[in-house]
Amino acid sequence: MTAHSRPTPDMALARSLFDELAARTRVGRGILRASYGEGENFAHGLARRTAEGLGLEIATDAALNLYMTMPGKDRTLPRLVVGSHMDSVPQGGNFDGAAGVVAGLSALAGLSRLGIRPRRDVTVMAIRAEEAAWFNSSYIGSHAAFGRLEPEALDVRRSDNGRPLREHLADAGGDPAAVLRGESHLKPEAVAAFIELHIEQGPVLEAEQIPVGLVTGIRGCLRYAHARCHGAYAHSGAAPRATRQDAVAATAELVHRLDGACIAIDQKGEDLVFTVGQFNTDPAIAAPSKVAGETRFVLDFRGLKEATMRKAAGVGQALAEEIGRRQHVRFDFGAESYSYAAVMDLAMRARLKGLAGEIGIPALELPSGAGHDAAVFTAMGVPSAMIFVRNAHGSHNPDEAMALADFASATALLAAYIARDGAP
Amino acid sequence: MTAHSRPTPDMALARSLFDELAARTRVGRGILRASYGEGENFAHGLARRTAEGLGLEIATDAALNLYMTMPGKDRTLPRLVVGSHMDSVPQGGNFDGAAGVVAGLSALAGLSRLGIRPRRDVTVMAIRAEEAAWFNSSYIGSHAAFGRLEPEALDVRRSDNGRPLREHLADAGGDPAAVLRGESHLKPEAVAAFIELHIEQGPVLEAEQIPVGLVTGIRGCLRYAHARCHGAYAHSGAAPRATRQDAVAATAELVHRLDGACIAIDQKGEDLVFTVGQFNTDPAIAAPSKVAGETRFVLDFRGLKEATMRKAAGVGQALAEEIGRRQHVRFDFGAESYSYAAVMDLAMRARLKGLAGEIGIPALELPSGAGHDAAVFTAMGVPSAMIFVRNAHGSHNPDEAMALADFASATALLAAYIARDGAP
Repeated sequence: MTAHSRPTPDMALARSLFDELAARTRVGRGILRASYGEGENFAHGLARRTAEGLGLEIATDAALNLYMTMPGKDRTLPRLVVGSHMDSVPQGGNFDGAAGVVAGLSALAGLSRLGIRPRRDVTVMAIRAEEAAWFNSSYIGSHAAFGRLEPEALDVRRSDNGRPLREHLADAGGDPAAVLRGESHLKPEAVAAFIELHIEQGPVLEAEQIPVGLVTGIRGCLRYAHARCHGAYAHSGAAPRATRQDAVAATAELVHRLDGACIAIDQKGEDLVFTVGQFNTDPAIAAPSKVAGETRFVLDFRGLKEATMRKAAGVGQALAEEIGRRQHVRFDFGAESYSYAAVMDLAMRARLKGLAGEIGIPALELPSGAGHDAAVFTAMGVPSAMIFVRNAHGSHNPDEAMALADFASATALLAAYIARDGAP
Repeated sequence: MTAHSRPTPDMALARSLFDELAARTRVGRGILRASYGEGENFAHGLARRTAEGLGLEIATDAALNLYMTMPGKDRTLPRLVVGSHMDSVPQGGNFDGAAGVVAGLSALAGLSRLGIRPRRDVTVMAIRAEEAAWFNSSYIGSHAAFGRLEPEALDVRRSDNGRPLREHLADAGGDPAAVLRGESHLKPEAVAAFIELHIEQGPVLEAEQIPVGLVTGIRGCLRYAHARCHGAYAHSGAAPRATRQDAVAATAELVHRLDGACIAIDQKGEDLVFTVGQFNTDPAIAAPSKVAGETRFVLDFRGLKEATMRKAAGVGQALAEEIGRRQHVRFDFGAESYSYAAVMDLAMRARLKGLAGEIGIPALELPSGAGHDAAVFTAMGVPSAMIFVRNAHGSHNPDEAMALADFASATALLAAYIARDGAP
């Protein structure tokens, strides 16, 4: 790669943006940028002012997603979109989401400083309302950008104040009616690709001591959040083991054996993680001297392919039937919820991997366990990629810890991709 | 056995006593006979009036246990005591406890009707305050009868009204100071044997369709009521399985494997049941999308021998260490509580078994999972036995269901024992 095509991001700009975001949206220990709330509005305003300073073209859509575009040499080509969301969970961290927008702006500032003009239009997109914590569903902004927000979503009330999305959107200057009509700002055929830079929310890069991750795909989630085991309460001393309908014994067997089966599936090379995050006996009835007559628990399967998750759930059902017969209990997994998996574009992954090698940035391929707007772009048929930045302590908490040096490496890779696009 | 020595209990008396107890101590659906409360006092008064009508000698002790004695042919011999407690749990049933006193009175009434005078004094004992629901410990009455109530017990406050045992006892006419001094009404050397008739609290006799049980022993209980597993919370999609410190996965493995180990110990002939009646993740922190960082659970081991329970707990500790190392969690079983096991007297069991055969009553040997005053008599060195009566739906609830025909069979066996005592 020539010096010309090895642009460095504007890290002074990145630092100042992170600092201002933290200073203006911190409440107590954590960050508060509610979807369509004061903190998110401030972040979007900051991005817009920065983009104006960089001479980018500014647009918003009916849902108030913000588009900041550097014109390419050939404006008839489908554009490259880079970005992420700017809202946070309550008591969140400063980097989850915002890092992707700051990266886009810093990368374009770096290119601009070097006088590099990309082949096609490059749009930094600051996406609205990605966090499900506020309106009980993810990807509100990116769905609306493609004109695909479910109409009912506008009536959902925000978790902190009970006011519907419709009102929050209108108050912030958006156009709920246009969202309802399905007006789209992004046409899939007019978007060549989407790249989302985001902090890693798991511990892999930290553990492997590698600063940058290249995401293979976004895990989907097949979840039974209201699973139950129905047995019968009995005296723990007086009821012989063979006559018991012990919901705890049966559920413990199910969880342990299903865990083993899922580990085996994953080790054979099909990406899969299984989690029981909640497991409870009834606090009103269960007692130390009683055989438990009921348990409530969550079965959460995540993987890069729906078929793998369905297979694991099927193993769970078969185990539940076998254990239920033998232990005289009845399992009921209840309603399922499913959020789609998204495989990242193979060609983009290969190009990012090659670029990382060329500019000497250690990068590891890994799946994303959490959901991201890139899943929506993928679902709309837009080739998508994600760049992860090493981060300690996970996300969705005030202790997110991303080193700026790692962010600089990841953003340099993004800038290289932008500069090289169309010039392989 | 001759007709003379085959006495039938006075079932008309039994029926009338059960009916009056139910009519006068029912509150809502269930029975309410709090220790030293109105319902228990009524039951003791009813027993005393009945005993007076039968011409029995009446005595009470400082703790207000009631002794109703039919004089034997040789009054210098140690006496036979039969009986049980008359208190109930809140929303309890009519038979748990009271059946043993009604049985004693009905048996003596039957003997009296036939002009049978036993060889030795036979005392029907109506015991006070057996249920731990009221003063947080079992066997208050029988401990006090032997002068063995812990002094601190007098300061324990009753769960329903917060008033100490001392005041309740004084109000009912008892003598807390004498209890405190350890005055005993029963001297172990002056009691030849104790027989307690009680409804079965488990489902065994009902399942086996046998009306009467002969108790092999009262199971002790080794319990870890505050066991915990300490792991680490993590994102359920983003944290790879191998790096997790998953408290639910680890605890499920422990419970399942320890359950299997305890079943194996029991099947080799050492009486043992293992129960996890409570198993919970933290309702304030655990979530469907989080790996659980902590569980709280109860380990309850019951058996006829302390050594067996200790062995099982040792297996649990070894499993906890192995699983803890492999799953990167730390188990802490916390403080233990132990209530003693009591083996019923072999000679008495053999005699009861022989008598049941002679008078044609189907009887099954089985352990008692719940504790009973007979455990205190055994601990004091008094040879003791228990006769169980078939009962559906367990005890400690309003749905106890003992057929009077089964009670008649069990009480006939008790009467036969009394009549045959000293005349084998």
